[in-house]
Amino acid sequence: MSAYNPVTPDDIRALVRIVGPAHVVWKDAEKLEACSHDETPDRRWAHMPEAVVRPRSADEIADVLKLANRRRIPVTPRGAGSGLSGSAVPLHGGIVLHLDRMNRILEVDRENMVVVVEPGVVTNEINEALRPAGLFYPGYPMSLESCHIGGNVAMNAGGAKAVKYGVTGRYVLGLDVVTPSGEVVQLGGKRVKDVTGYDLIQLMVGSEGTLGVFTRITLRLLPLPRASADLLCAFRSVAEAVRAVPRMMTRGAVIPAAIEFMDRDALRAAAEYLNEPPAAPDAEAVLLVTVEGASVEAVERDYDALGREVLAAGAIEVFVADNRATSERVWRLRRNVSEALSLLSRNQSNEDIVVPVAEIPRLVEGVQALSRKWGLFMPCFGHAGDGNMHVRIVMDPAWTMERWNTALPEVLKELYLLTAALGGTISGEHGIGHKRKAYVPLVLSEAHLNLMRAVKRALDPHNILNPGKKFDL
Amino acid sequence: MSAYNPVTPDDIRALVRIVGPAHVVWKDAEKLEACSHDETPDRRWAHMPEAVVRPRSADEIADVLKLANRRRIPVTPRGAGSGLSGSAVPLHGGIVLHLDRMNRILEVDRENMVVVVEPGVVTNEINEALRPAGLFYPGYPMSLESCHIGGNVAMNAGGAKAVKYGVTGRYVLGLDVVTPSGEVVQLGGKRVKDVTGYDLIQLMVGSEGTLGVFTRITLRLLPLPRASADLLCAFRSVAEAVRAVPRMMTRGAVIPAAIEFMDRDALRAAAEYLNEPPAAPDAEAVLLVTVEGASVEAVERDYDALGREVLAAGAIEVFVADNRATSERVWRLRRNVSEALSLLSRNQSNEDIVVPVAEIPRLVEGVQALSRKWGLFMPCFGHAGDGNMHVRIVMDPAWTMERWNTALPEVLKELYLLTAALGGTISGEHGIGHKRKAYVPLVLSEAHLNLMRAVKRALDPHNILNPGKKFDL
Repeated sequence: MSAYNPVTPDDIRALVRIVGPAHVVWKDAEKLEACSHDETPDRRWAHMPEAVVRPRSADEIADVLKLANRRRIPVTPRGAGSGLSGSAVPLHGGIVLHLDRMNRILEVDRENMVVVVEPGVVTNEINEALRPAGLFYPGYPMSLESCHIGGNVAMNAGGAKAVKYGVTGRYVLGLDVVTPSGEVVQLGGKRVKDVTGYDLIQLMVGSEGTLGVFTRITLRLLPLPRASADLLCAFRSVAEAVRAVPRMMTRGAVIPAAIEFMDRDALRAAAEYLNEPPAAPDAEAVLLVTVEGASVEAVERDYDALGREVLAAGAIEVFVADNRATSERVWRLRRNVSEALSLLSRNQSNEDIVVPVAEIPRLVEGVQALSRKWGLFMPCFGHAGDGNMHVRIVMDPAWTMERWNTALPEVLKELYLLTAALGGTISGEHGIGHKRKAYVPLVLSEAHLNLMRAVKRALDPHNILNPGKKFDL
Repeated sequence: MSAYNPVTPDDIRALVRIVGPAHVVWKDAEKLEACSHDETPDRRWAHMPEAVVRPRSADEIADVLKLANRRRIPVTPRGAGSGLSGSAVPLHGGIVLHLDRMNRILEVDRENMVVVVEPGVVTNEINEALRPAGLFYPGYPMSLESCHIGGNVAMNAGGAKAVKYGVTGRYVLGLDVVTPSGEVVQLGGKRVKDVTGYDLIQLMVGSEGTLGVFTRITLRLLPLPRASADLLCAFRSVAEAVRAVPRMMTRGAVIPAAIEFMDRDALRAAAEYLNEPPAAPDAEAVLLVTVEGASVEAVERDYDALGREVLAAGAIEVFVADNRATSERVWRLRRNVSEALSLLSRNQSNEDIVVPVAEIPRLVEGVQALSRKWGLFMPCFGHAGDGNMHVRIVMDPAWTMERWNTALPEVLKELYLLTAALGGTISGEHGIGHKRKAYVPLVLSEAHLNLMRAVKRALDPHNILNPGKKFDL
């Protein structure tokens, strides 16, 4: 299957010399297993590493990569392992480069409005550290309490607030990188504009650990918004809810921080999971809209404007949460949808499609048609304001595993072709990994894939850094 | 000097077959000369093309590039020719690919808040076309009335409003590209999130026409701000003015749309050029601060907060321009600085350095010290809110050309080393071209340059697309 060499006792001795004996895992099946998978529910996407190495510096990482190049051993970088596409899975075995020891916030630079962190910092800790300085990092994803910032950069993670603030990549001003061949390179820094070189930072962002290992990340910050409010908007139909999404931004002329969508099934699952009475029991769908601004008055004016638009779009009820307690209550529902749905069945596929915002109504109609056609439960939720919808495809408990395994690739293909026909693509924030790799040709041309292959070969001539992700060479 | 072949009569016949006889220029020295330079004042950076070709479609461009690869003829894409670093200059002769015929606005998609354009559209025309839809494209540079959007993307142009809105790259959602080897590839589209492939769009943005020719550009838009105001803030010293810049954003907690800086010399030159009495005659420096928002009240609240900060920072006067006429008056000054200074002497260098915002005071002090040391007039103006300062280095009329030609590279080196020491770099928005190429190693490591070379070689194996720009292979 591969041209790679197995990790030998000599290699282990070399790795021990680089990172110290306490930071090399070998032949300890339990510890290796922990690095064999991410949070993709189906463990068929898992693969065991031969060794796990936990470096503490760019130089150690450079030495590991030089060894791996000499010996033709694949190396897979890993953060919190909270991914959903297999990107951190050592598909070809070899070495997992676990970055959990590189977990320091190195500098909060208030005057330049940047923070400098190592890749293994838990994303939420960044905002905790910034709050006293009146600053915030807006790029965080929903999994902020467990994910690592390095993984966010590797995946170009999105989050609930991407509508207004954009995703991770917009905030990465500086990136220290170890290249696949073991060179340490500093890209960018604390400056907000720079056209000196090619934009290698954004090439690295979202490359899923295939083009470099990040050792230090400089993030741009914004002033912490001084006021916010959430609107929970209930609709009698999915169609009315999703049609309100582009309307808020175009006719309302306000870009909310967040526009999250939950259909009735997703909402109900979350309420049951939290042991709460159902929110908006008459609603077929809800939008959770967050407005943030520099003052209470600015926020009120914005949510008045948005409220008018959602009511005009057919909302049957708009609940305003303008204090911490009520905001927390509505966001708790949204934050727990994913976990609640995951409990329904081990056999489900967590999809992450994205379409142009105005196509969201057609996308949701199409998903409902697929659900009826295949007789499968397919709840929808997610970042409607970005056109980014999470679709769960849940196995019918009456089905055999064989039927499910035969049907799922077909359902996925139909879902992705629908998405492509609407001008969308197969991942908005979760990434491709090896889980979605086979479907990439549905949305990217062969010429496009060849450009990516050319870049990968140029930077990683022996294909040792996270091989087999996104595409095959 | 190069391994390129000259353009032969056979090549011309082939080009005529591709684009038609009316769209090939050959042996017409006057027309060729027009494509031999950009707006860099010193014509020593100019170089004559052998032919100019004006294609109308991606397919025609693909055919030209295939021919150029077969025949090893360099091809240099060109927009309005309004650049300031030589990026559009055919340094090795060959073919200039003039994109001025590809000048259509293809679609204003209001619901998705995007516009689709060809590269040869004059940037200002985009916002003219968008105004009736209540939308705007914020990425435009100061030269918006002459530059082409394709050139903006090729250079990752910045502009006055980058403080709040970012530069060109943030708005490019889709890019149809002809690769150096003549493949037509569609990158991205109308979706605002996408982690399917590598971010080749941002790799292309700012690559100065060395990695691909853009044939269709999809730009993200924002709701047109409904209110704005400008503050002209006068300071007794440059130091006080530039120290106010980070303060506005950190203590004021407001991100203005623009924070422009002019020192006394720049301000005076602009006023004289416009035949106006000097604005703020007692000031050593001014800041021009623009606030934009969804309502008059929001804008008032923001400029109150900012006004307090600039006064606390030592401003001696703050003039509020809150209607179109007064706003136009203060911005006219800023817009005419560059032209006014250009009239001072043919012999000057227009620099574009950028540092972390909080280092702006030290940068300006350093420039003043250099000016004293060399006895050269070095007025400063530009995008202080981004740390991006335009420094003119103007020849002393008493100097001989020989003295100037010997001194200038030394002055530039000292300026760039100062910038690098402050964590900055040698171009924020004008680019490198061949004009600044020799200085790039002052700010980028050899390993970093090698990464760029590897990418260039991977995409352009015969090095035919705009060779000799940014770096040498």
